[in-house]
Amino acid sequence: MAQTGRECSIANALAVVGERWSLLALREINLGATKFDQIARNTGASRDILAARLRALVTAGVIERRLYQEHPPRHEYVSTEAGKALRPVLHALMEWGDRYATEGDPPTVLAHDCGAELRAQAVCSHCGGPVAWGENTRLVRLGTVR
Amino acid sequence: MAQTGRECSIANALAVVGERWSLLALREINLGATKFDQIARNTGASRDILAARLRALVTAGVIERRLYQEHPPRHEYVSTEAGKALRPVLHALMEWGDRYATEGDPPTVLAHDCGAELRAQAVCSHCGGPVAWGENTRLVRLGTVR
Repeated sequence: MAQTGRECSIANALAVVGERWSLLALREINLGATKFDQIARNTGASRDILAARLRALVTAGVIERRLYQEHPPRHEYVSTEAGKALRPVLHALMEWGDRYATEGDPPTVLAHDCGAELRAQAVCSHCGGPVAWGENTRLVRLGTVR
Repeated sequence: MAQTGRECSIANALAVVGERWSLLALREINLGATKFDQIARNTGASRDILAARLRALVTAGVIERRLYQEHPPRHEYVSTEAGKALRPVLHALMEWGDRYATEGDPPTVLAHDCGAELRAQAVCSHCGGPVAWGENTRLVRLGTVR
């Protein structure tokens, strides 16, 4: 994708999902609200904007539009593998929002299979040690600025 | 914050940082590019849009504008604790982008202190077991739709 600025997978990711209504639509689809009307109501997005965002996400391969009823034809939206792989992004936003952007108790709470309320911790998949961004991590390579 | 749709910390977070240039500016500031001109060049943002986004981030308490030279007065932008806490969001976007939105090798690579190239894995901070969103997690409470 032609763009100026740093060569960067964050920028590339945001070119696909870097818009409020896109990520909120993906939240709903990943929660199982797959119909257009549900997604519109549950996100609060205007129908025109939502329709445009869903089309773009289909084109990008993040969701699929699927016929679930033939007479009359009715469609739903489901996550592809790429859409499901956005869950860590959504969860990181939720944890940040719980702490810095929401007053009062977290509106949504997950539990882990172990039974505990879920608080995720990032670990290094090689050594299993905790990851503290910028403290015990370092840059090996940084995308160049074009 | 008055809004329709689901009561949700993801929505609340995106109301603060849910805009492409805001997150790219935070990427640069967290990388240590703290001057306006650097942030503009390294993100590719237009100066007007960038100035508006930085002002909003200062207002939201995610970054601070700091005088680093008195004659002539020169300012830089630094992350607050809330801004540093966005690193997991940025990293989750980078990992997704590396896989689904970037052609070829990842432009930016981090290493963990153990020496290995960093691939983060989310674990439950209670039991230490792996977290697979939607597979070994379940909703305890879901924000209501207003």
